[in-house]
Amino acid sequence: MTRRGDTLLFDAPPTVAAWAAAGGKKESEGPLASAFDFVTQDAAFGEQGCENWEQAESLLQRKAVELCLRKADIPRSKVDIAFAGDLQAQCTASNYTMRELGIPFAGIYGACSTMAETLGLAAVFAAGGMAERVLALTSSHFCAAERQFRTPLEYGAKRTPTAQWTATAAGACLVRAHGSAGVPVLSVTFGRVQDFAVHDINNMGAAMMPAAASTLLRYFSATGTSPQDFDAIFTGDLGEVGTALLHEQMAKEGLPLDNHKDCGCLLYDTNSQNVQAGGSGAGCSAAVLCGKILPMLAAGQLRRVLFLATGALMSQTTFLQGESIPGIAHCVELGGAV
Amino acid sequence: MTRRGDTLLFDAPPTVAAWAAAGGKKESEGPLASAFDFVTQDAAFGEQGCENWEQAESLLQRKAVELCLRKADIPRSKVDIAFAGDLQAQCTASNYTMRELGIPFAGIYGACSTMAETLGLAAVFAAGGMAERVLALTSSHFCAAERQFRTPLEYGAKRTPTAQWTATAAGACLVRAHGSAGVPVLSVTFGRVQDFAVHDINNMGAAMMPAAASTLLRYFSATGTSPQDFDAIFTGDLGEVGTALLHEQMAKEGLPLDNHKDCGCLLYDTNSQNVQAGGSGAGCSAAVLCGKILPMLAAGQLRRVLFLATGALMSQTTFLQGESIPGIAHCVELGGAV
Repeated sequence: MTRRGDTLLFDAPPTVAAWAAAGGKKESEGPLASAFDFVTQDAAFGEQGCENWEQAESLLQRKAVELCLRKADIPRSKVDIAFAGDLQAQCTASNYTMRELGIPFAGIYGACSTMAETLGLAAVFAAGGMAERVLALTSSHFCAAERQFRTPLEYGAKRTPTAQWTATAAGACLVRAHGSAGVPVLSVTFGRVQDFAVHDINNMGAAMMPAAASTLLRYFSATGTSPQDFDAIFTGDLGEVGTALLHEQMAKEGLPLDNHKDCGCLLYDTNSQNVQAGGSGAGCSAAVLCGKILPMLAAGQLRRVLFLATGALMSQTTFLQGESIPGIAHCVELGGAV
Repeated sequence: MTRRGDTLLFDAPPTVAAWAAAGGKKESEGPLASAFDFVTQDAAFGEQGCENWEQAESLLQRKAVELCLRKADIPRSKVDIAFAGDLQAQCTASNYTMRELGIPFAGIYGACSTMAETLGLAAVFAAGGMAERVLALTSSHFCAAERQFRTPLEYGAKRTPTAQWTATAAGACLVRAHGSAGVPVLSVTFGRVQDFAVHDINNMGAAMMPAAASTLLRYFSATGTSPQDFDAIFTGDLGEVGTALLHEQMAKEGLPLDNHKDCGCLLYDTNSQNVQAGGSGAGCSAAVLCGKILPMLAAGQLRRVLFLATGALMSQTTFLQGESIPGIAHCVELGGAV
């Protein structure tokens, strides 16, 4: 392992050996419909015995884990440790998932940056010999998130044009030590909190953009690379507003992003699906990673990408107290399949 | 690094190079009063410009970090990464602390087990060469926690005899790579979620006990040790109810705990301080670790201990939905000062 600035470069890269994405109805109607390993038309999972949205989100996580481990062809008892987190207060979707799985567990909170944070920690553990098989997972659920962060759905509140739609989705990755077949994790950069005093809870893209720019700039500076060294740079989830701001900011920095895609703009058709500025939620970038980015790397359609998940670190309490919304972005560099 | 079962043993142990504990008024009146590096008589921090309990908790964290880094004699710019988390929904005390500190940051959620989880991850990063200087920190605040998990203080709700008092306290540790002076971290064991169907939010000790027993038993089995191999085994925070249950359980397992202390029973005088069954909150075990355990190891009064922080993984939402309360316990093994 080599450390350059905030970036950890793996000399013997661990690999993402298997992955799976699970989603709900709206996600099954979007451009990535065929990318999901599992979709449900009933995101309440009523027939499966779920009594509320929070339980349903946890079940969606378990579907992603089950399918991921099935692809990896290992039982859950062979997993050494799991990193998981979600948007629910006290990360209960993940806690209840891990109760069912019974795997050693380190709980994570990174808001919508969770997929990159858990994948980064999983890669560190696999690269450092702390574990042979590590799970990284996260989720979000539109209905659980709306009533927690904004208003209960029953109120029928109007959504502003800058609002983003919390994805009902989950993603799970199994990371293994160097030498296993899969998609190599080349580096990890843990982000620093940025706060540019955005106070609008319906404009997450603007709140998170500075964190994305900060981590990207630190990564490029530490590694001596620039955007054109990558087949693609994926952020998640800035939506249309945050994406436009990021392009503007990076152009000002002399590093225009010509090969950038945002997971929040990939998961839904922003013209026809009534998601306003795009998707969000920890499950959004997780599902795009597991449904699209990793498969394209595995198939040789991409050979080197940055996956930069962004999170807004407020709560409903701090928002009502008038606090601004800090953001964070963690970056995972992925290479062509080995 | 050697892996045995769920336990990571460090062949070249990283060290806790510096630490600090910060607390409030009640904590300054308890048996560990002199153990704190900082205490305030106004836990609202009104004169410091805090407008609410949540901000005050974040400020308490920053006090602990400031003092810890001052003892280590390094500026915060020299810290490679920080692991932090707390009990507030979306871990906002830590998020806002990290906004002020500007250090690369991985957010953690482990409820009251957070100090052991962050310290364990910090030790892994320092041992594996991922970082040279790592911060591990956490906090809790009685007033922020009560209104979030139970009822606002203004309601004047009666407390049951099994209830525990959330500590207004914070602890911070600076972990450095092997070879630095300090208290060595000999091993880390990340726990597995346990749920013995306790539904009483005023009996956290009973809810968390099975997790403590599970992690202890896995640790002893993996390492071939037994309780008498340690000068002391500290849990945090089971309180009097959980402690009695743990002693009963471990005796049944043939591993009686004669040298066990619970951080929840150490921080307050349970006879005179009106804390019912003892202290709790992520800051409770953090303050006892930084105020008592680490100083005793540094002074040669202890030579080998287990620090086993326990967390209850519910939220107010899951509690009201009738879910049972899962628990988790992470274990950090500490040695005599080098």
